Amino acid sequence: MGQPIRASAASDSAAAPGSFPILLQRGTEVSLPVQLAAALRDAIDDGILHGEDAVQPSRELARQLGVSRGVVVAAYEQLIAEGYLQARQGGRTVVHASAPGTGPVRGAGGAGDDLGARSLAEHGDTEPAAAASSLAARGPLAPGAPITDAVVRPAWRAAWRSAVARAHLEAPALGDPQLRAEIADHLRRMRGVHRAAADLVVTAGARDGLHLLLTALTQWLGRSPRVGVEDPGYPSLRRVVGLHGATMIPVAVDADGLDPRSLPEQGIDAVIVTPSHQYPLGGSLPLARRRELIAWASRCGAVIIEDDYDSELRHVGNPLPALAAIDDPVGGSVALLGTFSKTISPSLSAGYLLLPERLIELVVPVRRTLGGPVSAVVQRALAEFLASGELRRHTARMRRQYSARRALITEQLGGIPGVRARVMSGGLHTVVELSGTEAPELERLLTAELIRGGLGGVPLSRYWQSGTGGAAEQYGLVIGTGRSDIGEFAQSLGKLRALLLRELRQSLS
Amino acid sequence: MGQPIRASAASDSAAAPGSFPILLQRGTEVSLPVQLAAALRDAIDDGILHGEDAVQPSRELARQLGVSRGVVVAAYEQLIAEGYLQARQGGRTVVHASAPGTGPVRGAGGAGDDLGARSLAEHGDTEPAAAASSLAARGPLAPGAPITDAVVRPAWRAAWRSAVARAHLEAPALGDPQLRAEIADHLRRMRGVHRAAADLVVTAGARDGLHLLLTALTQWLGRSPRVGVEDPGYPSLRRVVGLHGATMIPVAVDADGLDPRSLPEQGIDAVIVTPSHQYPLGGSLPLARRRELIAWASRCGAVIIEDDYDSELRHVGNPLPALAAIDDPVGGSVALLGTFSKTISPSLSAGYLLLPERLIELVVPVRRTLGGPVSAVVQRALAEFLASGELRRHTARMRRQYSARRALITEQLGGIPGVRARVMSGGLHTVVELSGTEAPELERLLTAELIRGGLGGVPLSRYWQSGTGGAAEQYGLVIGTGRSDIGEFAQSLGKLRALLLRELRQSLS
Repeated sequence: MGQPIRASAASDSAAAPGSFPILLQRGTEVSLPVQLAAALRDAIDDGILHGEDAVQPSRELARQLGVSRGVVVAAYEQLIAEGYLQARQGGRTVVHASAPGTGPVRGAGGAGDDLGARSLAEHGDTEPAAAASSLAARGPLAPGAPITDAVVRPAWRAAWRSAVARAHLEAPALGDPQLRAEIADHLRRMRGVHRAAADLVVTAGARDGLHLLLTALTQWLGRSPRVGVEDPGYPSLRRVVGLHGATMIPVAVDADGLDPRSLPEQGIDAVIVTPSHQYPLGGSLPLARRRELIAWASRCGAVIIEDDYDSELRHVGNPLPALAAIDDPVGGSVALLGTFSKTISPSLSAGYLLLPERLIELVVPVRRTLGGPVSAVVQRALAEFLASGELRRHTARMRRQYSARRALITEQLGGIPGVRARVMSGGLHTVVELSGTEAPELERLLTAELIRGGLGGVPLSRYWQSGTGGAAEQYGLVIGTGRSDIGEFAQSLGKLRALLLRELRQSLS
Repeated sequence: MGQPIRASAASDSAAAPGSFPILLQRGTEVSLPVQLAAALRDAIDDGILHGEDAVQPSRELARQLGVSRGVVVAAYEQLIAEGYLQARQGGRTVVHASAPGTGPVRGAGGAGDDLGARSLAEHGDTEPAAAASSLAARGPLAPGAPITDAVVRPAWRAAWRSAVARAHLEAPALGDPQLRAEIADHLRRMRGVHRAAADLVVTAGARDGLHLLLTALTQWLGRSPRVGVEDPGYPSLRRVVGLHGATMIPVAVDADGLDPRSLPEQGIDAVIVTPSHQYPLGGSLPLARRRELIAWASRCGAVIIEDDYDSELRHVGNPLPALAAIDDPVGGSVALLGTFSKTISPSLSAGYLLLPERLIELVVPVRRTLGGPVSAVVQRALAEFLASGELRRHTARMRRQYSARRALITEQLGGIPGVRARVMSGGLHTVVELSGTEAPELERLLTAELIRGGLGGVPLSRYWQSGTGGAAEQYGLVIGTGRSDIGEFAQSLGKLRALLLRELRQSLS
């Protein structure tokens, strides 16, 4: 790793807040323009730069960052192509007007100043989730959200009613014992994992579980861990790894998921894998690879972090048991990250971390130090919900709904030349692959159009750490199937089909 | 700092799990026996060592850790005096039988093995909060818990009913906008802080807020921060600082709280203070010191982390406005850590972090990366609860209850020679100070008796980083006033009085 380039990017625009930190790293495999574009994209997504804010002139920002002007120009051009920035007459470049405006909103301070608060409240009332997401991750085709409108039913209300009446109880740092027992039961029935409740820690979701585990590993190692990540892979977990100052080691995946033979025998402390349903490409790790992976971890003393984000939602056949199911419960290597965000609702902010004994003994003291983040009321309600059997019924209903959406995708996006909708055997997203020499340009144009049209959908190439579509140069779109109701979903797919046909025609003419 | 001594302490007892990590640090101001005792105490409190487990022979553990046998013997003797360990006939030393048994409980694994789960469930059903705490922090006189049995009332149920019906909504990473607006309003009314909702981040409580802030500071600094902590101070926040590998700099406090003139002009990135109600000694920072503290931070570019844990519960007079109230909302220094655990219920696991603009821009990207840990349902319910005005009514009721308990303390513990119950102007705890040459021994004996009797209460000297009672060698007990109902509280005070009188008589004979 080279020296970090650290600067505070002050904007000359009166509308923009003072500054935000930009940290570029020389000597990594990610080019400086790609790093800078990512930093600016984040600042826009985070609402630190607002719609219509002018960005700094490229010469000025280049000087501040100590990079060549070409780096800044390339980053700006990338973001203009993506629709994040807009070039205005007179050479000014501004943030796209539809950028989320939920970052710091300030007045003069003082007693009467709650304009910021009020506008936040009004905004949030209509689309609180969207406000937190990136431009490309908003809209009916944006990936990452499950269907949730069917959650609020009598069993749900009953579970909460009972929990709220016991709202004076505090949960232990590791989690409500009844909930841990119910999750152990759930893992037994749904994921083939036979383990005791004592092996589980209740988390605020997969990212919280990863953060906890990496904190414990950092403590134990006495340094930041070196973490292998699937490439392409799930950016939100990768960003958590980045927070820990960890060295990220990209590990290639193919149609069968991660290839354990590509893992080095040294220099990796942990590897994050999606064995049931590789994200985003969809492969499922065959049993032979699972065994090899566990043998590798055991040889190297590494931790396998199994991101089991949506395996319950498989529409076709039965999922393979989790990796954790074939791991040694005492001296084993697999840390299973589970979440209820995809199967029930992201509103719960609840999940779990299943660990073998050697790891739970590292994690328990850290969790006790930090305290458990999940409200005892939520934990109790979730325990009641699981105990009632309603999760199984709800999951069965959801599988049917996702299956219907899968049929719509085949119907709308099938038969277009150069376009392949890689329909998954499960889960909440689909990859629309683009082939041919025009694919990179087509991906860029389509993404910008999807942002402009408010449809959402994320360019496939962004899931590679380098942002390039990987060695096989895969381009396309990742679209979600859960964010909208079936009517809006069908309509949005129709618009995507029209967009695809138009852009393809133009690229041929 | 010297080199860390790292070892895995394997126990020779069949009943004990394999091992747990012990990390000792040479060349710090905390002696090796004190460090080792703390590590073993944590292992017992964390349920890694269970009641009746034999600890390793001192010679063997000393060899493993590479320290002299005297270090291990001194640590064991300290823990025997505290009641954590028991010396048995034949020279065996075992963990006290009443140690919490909620750590990893294991059988052979496999399908039928949920004995661990069941026993956890049964245990937790009766006292889940206690299960997470240390031996000394259990029982009716243990500090840290508020009165919560009066929370479940019609307004509470109504707030939740409305939130549960909207349970399909996800909250943004920074928090539900309506809740942030309500908290801004709450801070205006209760703490004299006039700031916009955009300055607030919803947290899972004070520790989560501190963890978030320190993560952001570590990112920005490119190294672990150096953090000043009040000495004596709140151990649970200090432990979070320790997780970040931060250098902890103890800062002395006197009857008026932290003295800003004792802060060095260099070498501190942040300092944690309890200006409203110093923990545990109870001092309130006078306005002059508040101004000096803010001026110091501004000169040094340091962050003041204001732990405002229980100021709303002051029984006498009005609390001074928070430090944040006199800070600059843009370029200022004060990060206010708030929690609803003390005023409403720890079952919510909800609080907030209020930041000036320069800090919120560091924290926002980190929070978006990690995701918000607080369930959208909890946030919505809390927003409704605050909007209904019920928190103000509840707080007024609680103040009256704590005031009644304060009167009981004066009644029961007043007039005993060498004992001074330092009755606070507010909050949930009291310091029972012991004076005289026998005070250290008396503190030790009383703590062991309180643990044995299941009463709880923490030795005052443990709140100093060195565990010694500080330069002024203050000894005594910190007892909580919120954990039990008034009847049990009064009865427990009676038992404490009897214990005090007995031990005093013995020390005089």
